[in-house]
Amino acid sequence: MRKQLMFYLIFILFSSAEALAQRPGGGRNKKLATNNKNSVKMTKPKSQLFQYGVANAFIEGVYEGELPVSELLEEGDFGLGAPNLIDGELTIVGGKAYQSNAKGETFEAPTKLNTPFAFVTKFRPDTVCQLPPVQSIEELFSRIRTLLPNPNSMYALHITGKFSEMKTRAFPPVKQKPFIPIARQLDRQVFMKLNETEGEMIGFYMPVYLSGINIAGLHFHFLSDDRKSGGHVVGLAATALAIEIEEVKDFNLQIPQMPDFKSFKFIGNNNLNLQKIEKGTN
Amino acid sequence: MRKQLMFYLIFILFSSAEALAQRPGGGRNKKLATNNKNSVKMTKPKSQLFQYGVANAFIEGVYEGELPVSELLEEGDFGLGAPNLIDGELTIVGGKAYQSNAKGETFEAPTKLNTPFAFVTKFRPDTVCQLPPVQSIEELFSRIRTLLPNPNSMYALHITGKFSEMKTRAFPPVKQKPFIPIARQLDRQVFMKLNETEGEMIGFYMPVYLSGINIAGLHFHFLSDDRKSGGHVVGLAATALAIEIEEVKDFNLQIPQMPDFKSFKFIGNNNLNLQKIEKGTN
Repeated sequence: MRKQLMFYLIFILFSSAEALAQRPGGGRNKKLATNNKNSVKMTKPKSQLFQYGVANAFIEGVYEGELPVSELLEEGDFGLGAPNLIDGELTIVGGKAYQSNAKGETFEAPTKLNTPFAFVTKFRPDTVCQLPPVQSIEELFSRIRTLLPNPNSMYALHITGKFSEMKTRAFPPVKQKPFIPIARQLDRQVFMKLNETEGEMIGFYMPVYLSGINIAGLHFHFLSDDRKSGGHVVGLAATALAIEIEEVKDFNLQIPQMPDFKSFKFIGNNNLNLQKIEKGTN
Repeated sequence: MRKQLMFYLIFILFSSAEALAQRPGGGRNKKLATNNKNSVKMTKPKSQLFQYGVANAFIEGVYEGELPVSELLEEGDFGLGAPNLIDGELTIVGGKAYQSNAKGETFEAPTKLNTPFAFVTKFRPDTVCQLPPVQSIEELFSRIRTLLPNPNSMYALHITGKFSEMKTRAFPPVKQKPFIPIARQLDRQVFMKLNETEGEMIGFYMPVYLSGINIAGLHFHFLSDDRKSGGHVVGLAATALAIEIEEVKDFNLQIPQMPDFKSFKFIGNNNLNLQKIEKGTN
């Protein structure tokens, strides 16, 4: 009950801040604040998703990157990623990065650990909602979708609550090159199941046009409150959930400079319309 | 001859700057410069491509955006774009934006003109090369490709020289909704041909994985030295050319907030591997 009250209070707080930010001329505040040091900053800073690596290269075997966790954390305090050699899953929340491996262990990721593919934002939710109990991940996902007004935008999503069931997975690390695409080693996944656990889900909604660069749709990792369990969420049931939502309007991709990435052969999507328009011929 | 000498001088200058920047530990200079105000900044700032809008939405009829030329120019001094309602082509060079319309006119674009799709960078070339005469755009493009070491990176490309032939095109503005996709109105294109002209080509190489968001491959607009002619380049022959190249390693997409963009139905690329991996099932 106390928790619920707190959420409503937070909700009211955010709603007021939003209302203020959306008053006429609110969109200009960022500039005013820059030009006049005495002005009050009413709007939050520009929201940005920082990403290192490209999903389609990663899933096909580019499992080594050069971005250390320490530098990833400079770009955001909330996000998802993969450790080099896909040694489990990376979950970033509250400015800390956690690694959940296939042995069922979760621990703070070494700052020197590199990632081939990760994305983070500086999380400042603009909406907070209570959710009713859900029996499955599909039910949760369809509820979440009703809360996201723009299917062509990005959303950072933070869910906290009590889970009667939480099913996660992680990969054991790959050993040697040539690396096999993830889709051909799904039998190596290790699934973990927790019952009656409290924790949080860290994730994103990404639009269709970013598919291939990131992962379109909804995508979450889990972290238990005791920080001892986690992984990529594949199933769940929950009794009480709250969701914090932030719409993210800028996407910033840092292109890896590793030889494996440079030489990776991306498959073109053969957009014939684009080609015709480029050349000006049918 | 004087021009050639100048290019070689510039080339030597850039080569030395590059050699200095690439000395051991050069990659850390940006941070050192931030931490110690007395240190010399040896490396150039992080190169970034700023983009507003998504190519696949634009070519299918999202011809209205909310980004004015004035704000586009804050993000970069070199780039390409489309005016709202595809009223010709936008070319940004030297910090100015030019509009080339289907009447064959080129003029400085009004700062209040909005664009639905444009991309710019702060151009700081790292390589300068002389090119031999070329008989066709295909010949030029294959020469350029040999100068770009990383097919999975982005390159900003600035070509100056004498063109024995320059063929460009521009669209006349669309009038009313519903807007027809560009590929179905190629017959409305207006082609323009210049003989024996001097000018510059402003363009980019974009990697395959950004196809659909931007345009993969090489893509140029032309601007004559007298700033009276220009447009999207579809053909050329040239006697003397110099090319300046900058590798751009960060891609920053600003998502439009217009209703037309929000409601645009992107076609998914149905990456079954990504879906399988997400769900953890075959």
